[in-house]
Amino acid sequence: MVSRRCRIAVFFLVMFLAASNARKIKQYKPCKELVLYFHDVIYNGNNKDNATSAIVAAPQEANLTILAGHFHFGNIAVFDDPITLDNNFYSKPVGRAQGMYMYDSKKTFTAWLGFSFLLNSTHHQGSINFIGADPIMVKTRDISVVSGTGDFFMHRGIATIMTDAYESEVYFRLRVDIKFYECW
Amino acid sequence: MVSRRCRIAVFFLVMFLAASNARKIKQYKPCKELVLYFHDVIYNGNNKDNATSAIVAAPQEANLTILAGHFHFGNIAVFDDPITLDNNFYSKPVGRAQGMYMYDSKKTFTAWLGFSFLLNSTHHQGSINFIGADPIMVKTRDISVVSGTGDFFMHRGIATIMTDAYESEVYFRLRVDIKFYECW
Amino acid sequence: MVSRRCRIAVFFLVMFLAASNARKIKQYKPCKELVLYFHDVIYNGNNKDNATSAIVAAPQEANLTILAGHFHFGNIAVFDDPITLDNNFYSKPVGRAQGMYMYDSKKTFTAWLGFSFLLNSTHHQGSINFIGADPIMVKTRDISVVSGTGDFFMHRGIATIMTDAYESEVYFRLRVDIKFYECW
Repeated sequence: MVSRRCRIAVFFLVMFLAASNARKIKQYKPCKELVLYFHDVIYNGNNKDNATSAIVAAPQEANLTILAGHFHFGNIAVFDDPITLDNNFYSKPVGRAQGMYMYDSKKTFTAWLGFSFLLNSTHHQGSINFIGADPIMVKTRDISVVSGTGDFFMHRGIATIMTDAYESEVYFRLRVDIKFYECW
Repeated sequence: MVSRRCRIAVFFLVMFLAASNARKIKQYKPCKELVLYFHDVIYNGNNKDNATSAIVAAPQEANLTILAGHFHFGNIAVFDDPITLDNNFYSKPVGRAQGMYMYDSKKTFTAWLGFSFLLNSTHHQGSINFIGADPIMVKTRDISVVSGTGDFFMHRGIATIMTDAYESEVYFRLRVDIKFYECW
Repeated sequence: MVSRRCRIAVFFLVMFLAASNARKIKQYKPCKELVLYFHDVIYNGNNKDNATSAIVAAPQEANLTILAGHFHFGNIAVFDDPITLDNNFYSKPVGRAQGMYMYDSKKTFTAWLGFSFLLNSTHHQGSINFIGADPIMVKTRDISVVSGTGDFFMHRGIATIMTDAYESEVYFRLRVDIKFYECW
């Protein structure tokens, strides 16, 4: 009887441990999920007031309003884009996406991203930091969520990016599915 | 008696586990803390020898010595700033802060940061890597400590940045309170 | 006897726990290792077809084909370099290294790196994201592996970089020893 109780105690303890360590072992269920959209309006020399991003660096012979040849290789753009809960550019923003992207291929459109989401709404307060390669022509691309602050204190995860819409080379709307696998 | 001993053993085991997993569950006490200052002297065309940072990219019509209009939107600066233990610019540096910041708003002063602390003193050897958004006009801002090397091998945490002093648009002194929540 | 069994159960449980938490406590054995090479051919104004990287930003008075004085301080280069399994430039690439480096010292050659490895071979599918300071003149330098996707989902670790070969200021070959300490 005594032995049995002890075994039961040990059994539940093992279960508890297995549960608490589960994320490290096999199956990765997100501990938190968010779907957000952000809207990038690139400065083209004529849209100073509406533009939310600008090319600020480019290789020799390129200039800062027209994208460089060779798939814009080397262009760096800095952005401050509104974030919305749905895909409507005119929806009330819940935060800003701030940072940079740089085009980094001569053979196709690919970019490297370093940016943050600063969320400031009734639902979410805090920042989420992203880096990673974005092979733009692929339908869904995964980048890394490396950390966060506020509601996203120390969180880590994966963000899946989709180009939801674009208009010529001036407007891009991106859908971001954020899955956190390490929550605190 | 036997049963009691077993229960006690299990009890202490549970306590030990609770303690070792505490950081994941609720209360986040830093496992390591550092307070450091760094000093940024921006190149303005006339201070080549003293400058520790320079604007290297800017949108069209801006130039590389005077900050761009619209809250410097798009300016990227590269820096190599001395780190000190106190707020005195002339204190012996304990390392260098190296990396970049970019101004990324047309409506206020905000920046996006990507940089490292390289510490080389009797107290600390190693690097600490930071990224995150810095809403400069807010008194204290949190960015992410995403990893480190040497004494800070694989560490993660949060860095709280405060603008400790500034002189016109040439000198900035930043205080950084680093709290590591994941130590190795 | 009963007590003994219980003690044994508890003992093995403690051992199991000690093992599962080992990486946090003392000895850090990598859970995965990779050795890769990447090859950077810098655009110098005359090698447009072969170049895999280009200087896209520089401080005032520098230009975008000749590296800036003062150890290239402030130059930002964007790259899309082939990755190979051995040190032969002509080996079949297993992926691309994409991102940027910026020279950030006036007194020596040091750089700050932000880039990704995109691996696409029979052995490895996925991306690995790196940031960190690179004191180029030191034989081996450690930067941080902050996360990954695909085969490297959520991985973290340290990458040790060595300059394996270089030719004037146009070609650099880097050897990267990646050690993951957090695998999923």
